[in-house]
Amino acid sequence: MTFTRNWLDHAEGSVLVEYGRTRVLCAASVTEGVPRWRKGSGLGWVTAEYAMLPRATHTRGDRESVKGRVGGRTHEISRLIGRSLRAAIDLKALGENTIQLDCDVLQADGGTRTAAISGAYVALADAVDWLAKRGALAKDPAATLPHSVAAVSVGVIAGVPMLDLCYEEDVDAEVDMNVICTGTGDFVEVQGTAEHGVFDRARLDALLDLAVAGTAELARMQREARG
Amino acid sequence: MTFTRNWLDHAEGSVLVEYGRTRVLCAASVTEGVPRWRKGSGLGWVTAEYAMLPRATHTRGDRESVKGRVGGRTHEISRLIGRSLRAAIDLKALGENTIQLDCDVLQADGGTRTAAISGAYVALADAVDWLAKRGALAKDPAATLPHSVAAVSVGVIAGVPMLDLCYEEDVDAEVDMNVICTGTGDFVEVQGTAEHGVFDRARLDALLDLAVAGTAELARMQREARG
Amino acid sequence: MTFTRNWLDHAEGSVLVEYGRTRVLCAASVTEGVPRWRKGSGLGWVTAEYAMLPRATHTRGDRESVKGRVGGRTHEISRLIGRSLRAAIDLKALGENTIQLDCDVLQADGGTRTAAISGAYVALADAVDWLAKRGALAKDPAATLPHSVAAVSVGVIAGVPMLDLCYEEDVDAEVDMNVICTGTGDFVEVQGTAEHGVFDRARLDALLDLAVAGTAELARMQREARG
Amino acid sequence: MTFTRNWLDHAEGSVLVEYGRTRVLCAASVTEGVPRWRKGSGLGWVTAEYAMLPRATHTRGDRESVKGRVGGRTHEISRLIGRSLRAAIDLKALGENTIQLDCDVLQADGGTRTAAISGAYVALADAVDWLAKRGALAKDPAATLPHSVAAVSVGVIAGVPMLDLCYEEDVDAEVDMNVICTGTGDFVEVQGTAEHGVFDRARLDALLDLAVAGTAELARMQREARG
Amino acid sequence: MTFTRNWLDHAEGSVLVEYGRTRVLCAASVTEGVPRWRKGSGLGWVTAEYAMLPRATHTRGDRESVKGRVGGRTHEISRLIGRSLRAAIDLKALGENTIQLDCDVLQADGGTRTAAISGAYVALADAVDWLAKRGALAKDPAATLPHSVAAVSVGVIAGVPMLDLCYEEDVDAEVDMNVICTGTGDFVEVQGTAEHGVFDRARLDALLDLAVAGTAELARMQREARG
Amino acid sequence: MTFTRNWLDHAEGSVLVEYGRTRVLCAASVTEGVPRWRKGSGLGWVTAEYAMLPRATHTRGDRESVKGRVGGRTHEISRLIGRSLRAAIDLKALGENTIQLDCDVLQADGGTRTAAISGAYVALADAVDWLAKRGALAKDPAATLPHSVAAVSVGVIAGVPMLDLCYEEDVDAEVDMNVICTGTGDFVEVQGTAEHGVFDRARLDALLDLAVAGTAELARMQREARG
Repeated sequence: MTFTRNWLDHAEGSVLVEYGRTRVLCAASVTEGVPRWRKGSGLGWVTAEYAMLPRATHTRGDRESVKGRVGGRTHEISRLIGRSLRAAIDLKALGENTIQLDCDVLQADGGTRTAAISGAYVALADAVDWLAKRGALAKDPAATLPHSVAAVSVGVIAGVPMLDLCYEEDVDAEVDMNVICTGTGDFVEVQGTAEHGVFDRARLDALLDLAVAGTAELARMQREARG
Repeated sequence: MTFTRNWLDHAEGSVLVEYGRTRVLCAASVTEGVPRWRKGSGLGWVTAEYAMLPRATHTRGDRESVKGRVGGRTHEISRLIGRSLRAAIDLKALGENTIQLDCDVLQADGGTRTAAISGAYVALADAVDWLAKRGALAKDPAATLPHSVAAVSVGVIAGVPMLDLCYEEDVDAEVDMNVICTGTGDFVEVQGTAEHGVFDRARLDALLDLAVAGTAELARMQREARG
Repeated sequence: MTFTRNWLDHAEGSVLVEYGRTRVLCAASVTEGVPRWRKGSGLGWVTAEYAMLPRATHTRGDRESVKGRVGGRTHEISRLIGRSLRAAIDLKALGENTIQLDCDVLQADGGTRTAAISGAYVALADAVDWLAKRGALAKDPAATLPHSVAAVSVGVIAGVPMLDLCYEEDVDAEVDMNVICTGTGDFVEVQGTAEHGVFDRARLDALLDLAVAGTAELARMQREARG
Repeated sequence: MTFTRNWLDHAEGSVLVEYGRTRVLCAASVTEGVPRWRKGSGLGWVTAEYAMLPRATHTRGDRESVKGRVGGRTHEISRLIGRSLRAAIDLKALGENTIQLDCDVLQADGGTRTAAISGAYVALADAVDWLAKRGALAKDPAATLPHSVAAVSVGVIAGVPMLDLCYEEDVDAEVDMNVICTGTGDFVEVQGTAEHGVFDRARLDALLDLAVAGTAELARMQREARG
Repeated sequence: MTFTRNWLDHAEGSVLVEYGRTRVLCAASVTEGVPRWRKGSGLGWVTAEYAMLPRATHTRGDRESVKGRVGGRTHEISRLIGRSLRAAIDLKALGENTIQLDCDVLQADGGTRTAAISGAYVALADAVDWLAKRGALAKDPAATLPHSVAAVSVGVIAGVPMLDLCYEEDVDAEVDMNVICTGTGDFVEVQGTAEHGVFDRARLDALLDLAVAGTAELARMQREARG
Repeated sequence: MTFTRNWLDHAEGSVLVEYGRTRVLCAASVTEGVPRWRKGSGLGWVTAEYAMLPRATHTRGDRESVKGRVGGRTHEISRLIGRSLRAAIDLKALGENTIQLDCDVLQADGGTRTAAISGAYVALADAVDWLAKRGALAKDPAATLPHSVAAVSVGVIAGVPMLDLCYEEDVDAEVDMNVICTGTGDFVEVQGTAEHGVFDRARLDALLDLAVAGTAELARMQREARG
């Protein structure tokens, strides 16, 4: 996974994540203030939107703007990204500011959601630095964003637990698990699904081991990218 | 959790699930044929829609039909229910038939998604029996639906892992985990989220232990309800 | 027609109406204030939304939330319920409060709109009592809600005028009439339609006689239910 | 009420109805075939859509196309027009053809729905003649459309029952009744509403008398207009 | 092209434009204030919406309100009308008032967009006079609306540049150009399109010559209509 | 303007266009068959969709998918791109195939629509080559796509006609003109707009001269990029 920071000129934080042939553009936009339901709380807000360009995939998909509605998968991934990043940040230190993460898949070749989360963290960190430079935070950047966050997808393919480095999304995994960890190896989110059959505790443990190792490696790459 | 079967007269399977003050009506509707993209595959399809009546909650919520769009949370839970039940059924034995599960929350007091999944399984099982009586299945009902499926929510509240028997949804859990298991204790889906802070492997293991015990108890209740 | 009051724990008024196999859940939600166009008038507002669960009917219907639009029939019945209840209440005595009635059909077997209106009245009356207990009304409950309201459907089937006790909705009535009366036998709304052919004054009179008798009987049941 | 036939060059039937300062353009469009749910029945279909230009009214209203949804009032009136005209026509004689009525209010000054219905009948009759000339009907036009249909609005204003010849829509009528009759004085639809207070049988009878006389006069004007 | 002014009773300016069999109703609605993004600027705003009745055309088109979305062609023409009229008016003299132009095509037989623009100018001029009479303008009407605006469509048909007096819209023009000029022959907007093949500078010049002559003639008619 | 071809792995043609800090990703997707209304004509179809990522601009814009509707500007530009490319291609030689162009603005800094058109031509040309290699065209690629197409924006800024090399979109141009030419200097589309004031024939001629020279330069760059 490679991270190209400052890929955009306007955004307060931005990174192009590449993971095999998958490319996701993550942008962090800072705005003063928070949504109405949060006003006066003294807390900030972090939220995310994920989307895919129509020709990111092998066959062109219809645009959700043209269809007039956001699909269930898009909603689900957007919410996952937002939740993960909120777990990493001290919303009190952020103060009543909002950071909106946009993760747009330019090309999809497996692992788009994990690339999006890992890249969104880097964009978020840059936006936090941007706020710190303006004196807008209650704590220093390291305390405002105490955890780094990286995601991997692990799965069981043909009976073998594997770290999903760069497989096609449509490979028929028996178990498919997204694991999001901090740079210190704690869990932020664990999502394991068996669309075909079920999995026992031993398998779950094996997958978690793989995932923890994988996210540690990504955390190292994120640190390098952030210099 | 109590299951009142055949709560509806028209549906091929239906159950009213009650869990504390939470009440969810689960209906299974059988139709011949499958969605277009699946035609000719010889496989069946199971899908689900979750929704909440406007006054299921303490404060009235706007209807999604009136707003003209389905929200992200609704989408996410609908997809979760559908995935879990597809893991439980042999779609080949089902043949080219579709079973649509509707889980409508009549009153919400915590645990609506786990009640919905546990109830939807019972409605699904009744719909499978209904199909069997009409000779529409390639195998007997027990082989068509080899796993039972039940869901619990476990969480860490004030530092203590707890089986979420019947708490308010808005309690601020540090970790919130939905676990879906079969009647034999295998996993179908594991979803653990830390909105506030993170969790380590030991905590994850403790939560999984609680969840496995909880779903085993629910599986027993489901068996009783099914007679 | 049976009325089970307080079927919901959260709503200010709620009733499950059963009429043959038809079951409608009516909830009254009180909020302080009125819609913007009515602010400063000193008058309250009562409005209603009617909807049907997808598997309320013999064949599953698509959800209006998923279709992204509310259908004409739904709109029409919602407006009818709102109008009828506004005729029954003294909006000045209500003050600048809003009561929202939600009538959700859990199972449909004919007569859903008349059951919804008759039940919504009971939920409304309970909400008015709730407001009275909080000292929020300008008059006592009896003066705030001077009329009770009940609805019947009458029709001509095979040439014979009949009180539609519990027929299937799709029976081909020659004339179909919804009549809404107060407990003292005055009219609130009269809606007679001839989809097949037409009807003369004598037939109209016969139907009105039947309807007045039917609503008187319902008004008696409502009084009993309200204790 | 004046009827200017053939106001449009393309439509199979069209009429501009003027009623005081109210102007409604009614167009009948014939298409071969019927909606899918009616195919193979041998029966035709008649349906209607009512709408208002944004500046038909004193204050400009937002366009429903721009809002992205059709309002409840629009839906209700469209359904009323469609129902009334279906009651007038022999759908078997029409065969599997569809006639779509469009009633667009160019200027509104009271009575738009009754003008729309009365005008739509004339447009429908012209469309039936058009089909007859092409030999597309199973019976002659008079037998295909055995009833003429006209609508009036009657109401109680300041305690006095009145035929609503041309009042402003926003006058506060105590009772508001739309009555649709055939040319021979039979009823097609009766819709009486009391938004303020209620009405007794004597008042209902007085209103019906007025309405029958009013629709008889309109039926005469329709006959004249049709030559 | 004929202009019938004051076709509507309520609008601050209105005109029915007829051009061959094309009929467009243009209404100008004045409201105090401007959209939020323009508040406090001291400048007014002029905007437009174009639409077509369903049976304006040979074959009935679906209503955009029923489809739930405004089509691309509708959007494009609405924006063109708004832009052209804003070029004609002194928005500073207008002050913080909004004039909304509604151009509704009652019958379409070619040239609807040019008729709409030419008519909208007349309605706009009447609305400016209306504002002047109320003392709401910073300058006199002639200085507030210094330019008149008229539009023609010119095209190349079978190799010959032609002023599109009244052709069917679906004639296959090789080049299709909309030109909008002031009464003094300056350009407001030039839009030339070659759907089939391309055009050289000489052809462009010939078309512009035709267009300037055509709009001069229309400007004369507008002056006459305005008396 | 630089063109990076084959920026995507899946699309039949793709190019990243960079123009100052503006970056537009153009993808061409080939599908067999044509839209329903064109079936059996023997002619192909070319269409386009333009969109902007939310943080392409200085301030984040809302996603059109989340708003549930495509805006007027988006519609207008999409239609312009589609029209221009259809003018360049021989739809008969294309046969009943569809080429869909997607132009997604990754970063906006002026000139997005002209960059989109110029890039879309390159992607289209690659898609035509792709079809030729599969023997799917009735003529060779050069005859199928006889014209190259490039677009520039010219304008009058502070009284001076200028070729808009790379200005901010919000600069207040007095006249704004998009000109689309073929590689041989013929016109495909001319769109000149005066939002502030008007322009005379001499100014129009000066702008056209500038535009023709600018597109000739772009055509040279396109030839180079295509090798």
